[in-house]
This record gives sequence, C-alpha cells and structure tokens, in this order.
Amino acid sequence: MEQGFILWFTGLSGSGKTTISKALEPELKARGCKVEILDGDVVRTHLSKGLGFSKEDRDTNIRRIGFVAHLLSRNGVAAITAAISPYQAIRDEVRAMEPNFVEIYVKATLEVCESRDVKGLYAKARAGEIKGFTGIDDPYEEPPNPEIICDTERESVGESVKKILTKLELLGYI
Amino acid sequence: MEQGFILWFTGLSGSGKTTISKALEPELKARGCKVEILDGDVVRTHLSKGLGFSKEDRDTNIRRIGFVAHLLSRNGVAAITAAISPYQAIRDEVRAMEPNFVEIYVKATLEVCESRDVKGLYAKARAGEIKGFTGIDDPYEEPPNPEIICDTERESVGESVKKILTKLELLGYI
Repeated sequence: MEQGFILWFTGLSGSGKTTISKALEPELKARGCKVEILDGDVVRTHLSKGLGFSKEDRDTNIRRIGFVAHLLSRNGVAAITAAISPYQAIRDEVRAMEPNFVEIYVKATLEVCESRDVKGLYAKARAGEIKGFTGIDDPYEEPPNPEIICDTERESVGESVKKILTKLELLGYI
Repeated sequence: MEQGFILWFTGLSGSGKTTISKALEPELKARGCKVEILDGDVVRTHLSKGLGFSKEDRDTNIRRIGFVAHLLSRNGVAAITAAISPYQAIRDEVRAMEPNFVEIYVKATLEVCESRDVKGLYAKARAGEIKGFTGIDDPYEEPPNPEIICDTERESVGESVKKILTKLELLGYI
C-alpha cells in the first residue's frame, strides 16, 4: 500500500499556499501519488457550511479539515490542505493525530500579502466589511518548527515546489 | 489502483445499519479492501459540529458525509456510511456524484425499531424531548430502487453481510 501523508500549508491569505499546492499536485502525481487538495473553496462548499467566524467555529473548521486529511492519508493519499490555519494549537492537534504530517509555512509579510490582495479581501477587512480577518484584526501564529518554510518573497513557485519534493524524498514519503 | 466504492446504508434508527456495517468491515478487509466507516458518532464528532436539526442542516450533514465518502472512494477506499439519511433527494445527489454507489436499504418497521430502541431515542422522541425524529415527527423516505435490501426482521446479520458481499462481487467491486 502506498504511503499517505498530510502536507499542511499554513500562512496568511495571499502568501501563496494555493499557488504552490497546485504546482505541486502534478509533480506528486507524476511520482505515482494519489493526491487530494483540500483548499479553501472545497472546504467552504463541502465541509464548513454552517460554521461562522468565531474562534470556536474556526477551530472546528480546521479540526475538520485535519480529520478528513487524516482519513485520506491513512488510506495512502497525499492530502494537501491550504487553509490559513492561523493557530498553532490546532495545527499541533492535527499533527498529534497524523504520524505523517508535514507542516509547510508559506511565509510572506503582511505588507506583501496585502499589496498582492488577489481576492480583494484585505481591502474589505481594512474597510471593516470583514471582521476577524487574519493579520488585520485576528492573529496569525507563525509555526515555530515547520518541516518546510517557503519564503514566497524570495523564492519562485518552482523553487518552493522543488524544496518540498526534496524534503518528501528525505522523509521517504515519495 | 484498487477500486473504491460507497456503501450507503439508509434506514430508521435501530434498523441495524451500524451492526451490519461493523460485521461487514472485517470481511471486506479480508478481501484486501481499505475500509472506512463513517458512522453516526464519527460524523457527529468530526464533521457535523455546528449543525442543528433543521431540514437544511440535516441535508448539509448528509451531503457532507457524501462528499467525504466520495473523496475516499475515488482514492480506492470502500467508504461505508451508516447515517439514517431519510431523504431520497439527497441520497440521489450523492449517487450522482459517485459512480460506484451502492444504496443499501436496511429495512425494519418503525414498530420493530421502536421496540428495540437500543439508544433510548424513540422513548425520548415520544416524550417530546427530541424534536424532528425520523419516523416519529419527521419522515423517512424509503428508497424506491436500492441496490440491496437487508430485511433485518427476517434476515440474520450474517445473511445480510453475505447478500452484500455477493452483490459487490457481481458489481466487480470486490
């Protein structure tokens, strides 16, 4: 049976989590992995309906993504998650559940993420139209000890992908 | 790659869905299947928190179970669900999403299920302590065309399991 694992991307909105995970997917498939990406849109549509933006609801959401990723991983799938997942305690909970857990910190300063503002969310958060937005009026807790850091202010997407693949080879997952 | 599929048990509370699915699990594993059971407890703990008992929330819950089962199935897992799932329209939605969908109607009359009342839920529903309980004050829609019917008033658990295995062999899933 193939070895499954979770690639847990974490980082601010606009840091590059989805971009890197989408570039990574074909590389993993080319190496024979089954891959599922649980990105923000998938999660909001299929897993998170009914949840709001309170601290408790956000924690529930991240735990739920972790649970589904774990179900996939233990059945041999490379489960990629690309939610902001701002709180270390919840990320650590998922890590405790899943032995093959790779935390990838997609790092970019708030200033850079806000200047990218791909989805226009920072503008809305600054205007007060979105409350509790990570980085603006809700904290982002940097991972103290991630397996991988992708510094998207300094690395290209290709460089980040290569770094991740190299780590997965070292870990024996691919 | 192994062929995945969804075994979608549906039936009243106390009809025998969980009992049959638990007896089926080792048989499938013995045949080399990867198996995940998404039963009521797993779902309530890990997927449904935040949802209530309105028609809309129940539909969301069933769609969500269907989505997770589908993720597993398309990655080669035998995904077993054992929720009451009373509404045909939502079961048909899941069927439309997943090509390898086997609907198993676990059939027993309300009278029999109520007399079993393993979890004491019918008593609570009759006392008005639980509202919108399927069979009491919320409808159960019998599947008009399930792949399999397990009549638990007339069949033993072993007979139901054998019937399901035979059908899965015919379908070429095991």
